[in-house]
Parts: sequence; C-alpha cells; structure tokens
Amino acid sequence: MNYKSINFKNKFSLFQDKWKPKVIAELNDYQFKIAKLEGDFIWHAHSDTDEAFIVISGELRIDFRDGAVTISEGELFVVPKGMEHKPYAKNEVHLMMIEPVGVKNTGDQIESENTAENDIWI
Amino acid sequence: MNYKSINFKNKFSLFQDKWKPKVIAELNDYQFKIAKLEGDFIWHAHSDTDEAFIVISGELRIDFRDGAVTISEGELFVVPKGMEHKPYAKNEVHLMMIEPVGVKNTGDQIESENTAENDIWI
Repeated sequence: MNYKSINFKNKFSLFQDKWKPKVIAELNDYQFKIAKLEGDFIWHAHSDTDEAFIVISGELRIDFRDGAVTISEGELFVVPKGMEHKPYAKNEVHLMMIEPVGVKNTGDQIESENTAENDIWI
Repeated sequence: MNYKSINFKNKFSLFQDKWKPKVIAELNDYQFKIAKLEGDFIWHAHSDTDEAFIVISGELRIDFRDGAVTISEGELFVVPKGMEHKPYAKNEVHLMMIEPVGVKNTGDQIESENTAENDIWI
C-alpha cells in the first residue's frame, strides 16, 4: 500500500479564496480544516465545542470580549466552548482549525453572508 | 484578560526525554501532545481511535504491516483506528499528536517498558 502524508504548504497552494475552510483530514468525528484569512471576521461563538487554531504562516489575532490573543506561525490556541470571539488578520494568514465535523464557521447564529459551506475537501 | 498562544518550539525547549508525550492543550475530550522521538518504537494499535501525527521538525516514518508513510516537517498523517503501526525516526523528530484523553502510547497491549505515563503537562 502507498500511504501519503498531507503537506500543509501544498494544500494551501490549491486555493486562493479567503474565509472558506477546506477539509484536509478527519480524526474520528473531528476534522482538520485549513483556510486563508485576511481582514475582519464577525463575532460568533460555538456553544457546543472548543475550537483549535494553529497558524501555519502569518499572524492571527483573535479578539474576545475581555481581551485578545495573537497567534503566530508555529503556535496553537484553543478557544473555549461558548466564548465569543472575532478573528482578525492584518495580512494574509494561513490557518488550520481542528473541530468536530459540522461546526459552522459563523457559530451558533443564523446563517449570514459569512457562513461557508461545510465539508468541502481539498 | 491576558490570553497566550502556545508556541511549539518553546514547549520543545522545555524537555529532552524521548518517547514521553507531554500534553500542551486540550480540545473538548482530546489532547494535543508533543514528544521527541529517535530510533525505533514498538508495534501497536489503538482499537478505539484514530491518531493524528503532525511533524514540527525532522522526519518520521510510520511502518504499517503493508507499507509505510514518511511524514516531514509541516505534514500531517492520521493513522486509522485499529491499524497496527510502528513509528521510526532515524534522527530526532519533534512530533505533535492529537488523540482522545487517556490513549496509551503503546496501544491496546498490556503495559510494557515503553508505556509512558499519561496526562503529563508541560
């Protein structure tokens, strides 16, 4: 059998759109999703799950109602379940998220223009 | 509030022992664990869960009964549930694993000299 690892840089070379997560792997009922981000996203929360962010390149800021965290290349941050947050990238960021299958990028709120289709593999 | 990201390189600078995973973060009932590996491990399997491997530096080979995969820096591979595997690192590898809390590094078999204590945070 021929087994192949998943190369993050290769995967990021396959798309250009921003704020549209693509699935690259599954781990039980969790998914690894990558996305390119730039600019401001909306405030949202996920009431049922934590959400892990790993920055592959660039620098991501996540604002909370009472502070913020900056996540640089080679860094991880886990946003706790239920915590309102707003991602912001001054320049383009390449990000990997890890979260359960089916989590909506805009959180618990109703669909908005920012809501991305789920389960898009690349 | 002061929120801090987790820097992989900083965490790896805090220990030297090999094959002893350290927890750096939790995501619901999953853990992010980092370890330094060098040389050969034992054949084992995890009958209840997939296991994700992300190589932070170096190159890791995982042997299967019918093949192998090489995972380099900036790459991910998910070993499917129940699949026998044996990690091997010719030179020192810095690895992150993602798996449910409580997964034993030596898999389903009885304890061996290779079994590492679980839930050691760094």
